[in-house]
Amino acid sequence: MRKDLSKNLENVAKLAQISSRKLAILPAEAKNAVLEDMASALLANTERILSANKKDISACKGKNKVFIDRLTLSDSRIKQMADSLLEVARLKDPAGEIIRSWEVSSGLKINKVRTPIGVVAIIYESRPNVTSDCIGLCFKAANSVILRGGSESLNSNLAIFNILNKVVLGAGLPKGTINLIDTVEHEAVDVLLKLNNYIDLVIPRGGEQLINRVVNSSRIPVIKHYKGICHVYVDEQADLNMAENICFNAKVQRPGVCNAMESMLVHRDVAARFLPGMLKIFKESQVEIRGCALTKRIAKWTKLASEKDYRSEYLDLILSVKVVDSLDSAIAHINEYGSHHSDSIVTDSHESAEKFLKEVDSACVYVNASTRFTDGNQFGMGAEIGISTDKLHARGPMALEELTTYKYTVYGSGQVRQ
Amino acid sequence: MRKDLSKNLENVAKLAQISSRKLAILPAEAKNAVLEDMASALLANTERILSANKKDISACKGKNKVFIDRLTLSDSRIKQMADSLLEVARLKDPAGEIIRSWEVSSGLKINKVRTPIGVVAIIYESRPNVTSDCIGLCFKAANSVILRGGSESLNSNLAIFNILNKVVLGAGLPKGTINLIDTVEHEAVDVLLKLNNYIDLVIPRGGEQLINRVVNSSRIPVIKHYKGICHVYVDEQADLNMAENICFNAKVQRPGVCNAMESMLVHRDVAARFLPGMLKIFKESQVEIRGCALTKRIAKWTKLASEKDYRSEYLDLILSVKVVDSLDSAIAHINEYGSHHSDSIVTDSHESAEKFLKEVDSACVYVNASTRFTDGNQFGMGAEIGISTDKLHARGPMALEELTTYKYTVYGSGQVRQ
Repeated sequence: MRKDLSKNLENVAKLAQISSRKLAILPAEAKNAVLEDMASALLANTERILSANKKDISACKGKNKVFIDRLTLSDSRIKQMADSLLEVARLKDPAGEIIRSWEVSSGLKINKVRTPIGVVAIIYESRPNVTSDCIGLCFKAANSVILRGGSESLNSNLAIFNILNKVVLGAGLPKGTINLIDTVEHEAVDVLLKLNNYIDLVIPRGGEQLINRVVNSSRIPVIKHYKGICHVYVDEQADLNMAENICFNAKVQRPGVCNAMESMLVHRDVAARFLPGMLKIFKESQVEIRGCALTKRIAKWTKLASEKDYRSEYLDLILSVKVVDSLDSAIAHINEYGSHHSDSIVTDSHESAEKFLKEVDSACVYVNASTRFTDGNQFGMGAEIGISTDKLHARGPMALEELTTYKYTVYGSGQVRQ
Repeated sequence: MRKDLSKNLENVAKLAQISSRKLAILPAEAKNAVLEDMASALLANTERILSANKKDISACKGKNKVFIDRLTLSDSRIKQMADSLLEVARLKDPAGEIIRSWEVSSGLKINKVRTPIGVVAIIYESRPNVTSDCIGLCFKAANSVILRGGSESLNSNLAIFNILNKVVLGAGLPKGTINLIDTVEHEAVDVLLKLNNYIDLVIPRGGEQLINRVVNSSRIPVIKHYKGICHVYVDEQADLNMAENICFNAKVQRPGVCNAMESMLVHRDVAARFLPGMLKIFKESQVEIRGCALTKRIAKWTKLASEKDYRSEYLDLILSVKVVDSLDSAIAHINEYGSHHSDSIVTDSHESAEKFLKEVDSACVYVNASTRFTDGNQFGMGAEIGISTDKLHARGPMALEELTTYKYTVYGSGQVRQ
């Protein structure tokens, strides 16, 4: 059984690699036409997708509300999936772009050219829209894709995949251009992660446990889309009204996402002026506050934060608060306790802003803005495949360009090495 | 013992991370002054390095000539190490460069800024010059470095490291900015590879066994510097004189390096005209030829190649030869049997050249030039840390720029997300 599984998955990956070479030479217009047909096919098959989704939902009775909500599709969610595919079709084709061009003293003319990566595997949980979003982005970047979704959404994923794969095959593209691993065996992921001869990149999207499992057993390069413990630091020279707006937005506007603020740091010289009003506003919005001793002295109703709180991604209406001595302490705290995702300083001091931007070791560092802007669309990159918390290859919002690599093409006229 | 080792190495990595944040804010002039002092210190301590090197060499009696040659230092090799450090000092500081800058509709101004990676670990074999080359490049890119060399060169590595570390500490930089793991325990590598909370990147440089070991057990992102099975394809429309020069240079000028040609492909329509003269020239230079059946028919004295030959990196005066039907067959052969390192086509056809450049899935693809040019210096990048055969983050020659990452710095005026 186990041996069969290995053999099957190896064949899938092999075929994906062969297909990726065909896909790599497909012109942009042909790719865009397929993406538009994919969008139409999703809309035309809405009923079929919803009925598959119902099977998944009824098998998940007893799970909590957030879980069910993530899993559930609707007409409007399917419409969103189709719209995303159309948006990806409109994005500029990244492949073939000449990133840089120069001539060296030997007379060789060197181009650094953007190219597809090859085969990308994505391992994800619950949300079935990830299936079509990832297929669309990988297809546009001309990468073959191998998807492995969670068992809880298998029926929904299969329905979406089959609809999209029919479009791909109908366009004359080879089997293996897009792939969904639908075996129920749990160990399929571990087998997949050893196929580094065929798969070039694996992107895990999900909880800590999934990410750790992938990192621990993968021989394939991994780009992690990990947690967001994001901070807003209110500097001694902050405009306190602006700080209030930014902190409120970063925490409350959508608390369940990775770019929401989980921890608020306040310079001690403004704590007594800033915190009472700010914390009252949070209280009115049902935000639970877990603060340091100084926070608690200023607002007695708050809870005392533990060390663990400052390392927690709540994804909920809970906020840890800490009063700090200095900008240096704020930076040190963020680098130590944060997740290197998105952090913001509110300040009118140019000097403090520049120091914060330089020394905070995070993917996105803000001055006078909410951390909630960390997003491919908000950054003007179009749809994103996720937000990388890694430093290699892609950092921060990961969109089409980050789904490519490069090669050097070198033009000579008979040069040999001396 | 094992627990002690883990604890010790974790402390090294932790300290390296803390030091990397100090190094990241050091101005270019200060870094360059340290690099110049490092070069002087190597020259001033030549005798000390040579005497340590003698200990390593005498412990390696019985090893083959190539092994001993790699290990052996001399006045001129130490001078080269010093010169490399001076060259790195003269290179432009990559950190802080604004890669791109744009404004989005929310009014946020976004900069994509080049930054150091953080902590880089390098695991390597035999050549002691790697110790100073890697320290120099990582230092200039403002990364802390953790080196783990082979036990056969431990005395040489330690001597070089101690001399350079004295310069680093003398400049007021923290302990942990540069590090050499000198424990003899073999398992140190495995322990190191689990420290993904502190180490951002690991680069293995060495044979297949070392690379596989690192890939199989690392939780840290790896950039491999793997083998080079490089091809030259002589097209039906090649200038055959040029082809002769290029093939000869690619094979013979320095056969022991990764960008040398290991396999020569020849279009069948020119095989009868090209091969007899070319193979005679190779024979005169003591190159052993392992060819396909057609090759053997043209030159009876050649050996018959096995399937394995076409997958072999000889690093020696041995060449596999294959006559192919078409450009498509040549491309398919290279993508299947090659190592995605460097491949060249010799042709006068613009169309064939462009097809080859586009479809060969290798880091460096050449038209009418020797594969031997794949090298950071030849590409005008300055000193290289190696040649990546991976596709993620760095592909091909990996120099200063590839030892950096980026972050987004975002300037707002109070923006919150709608």
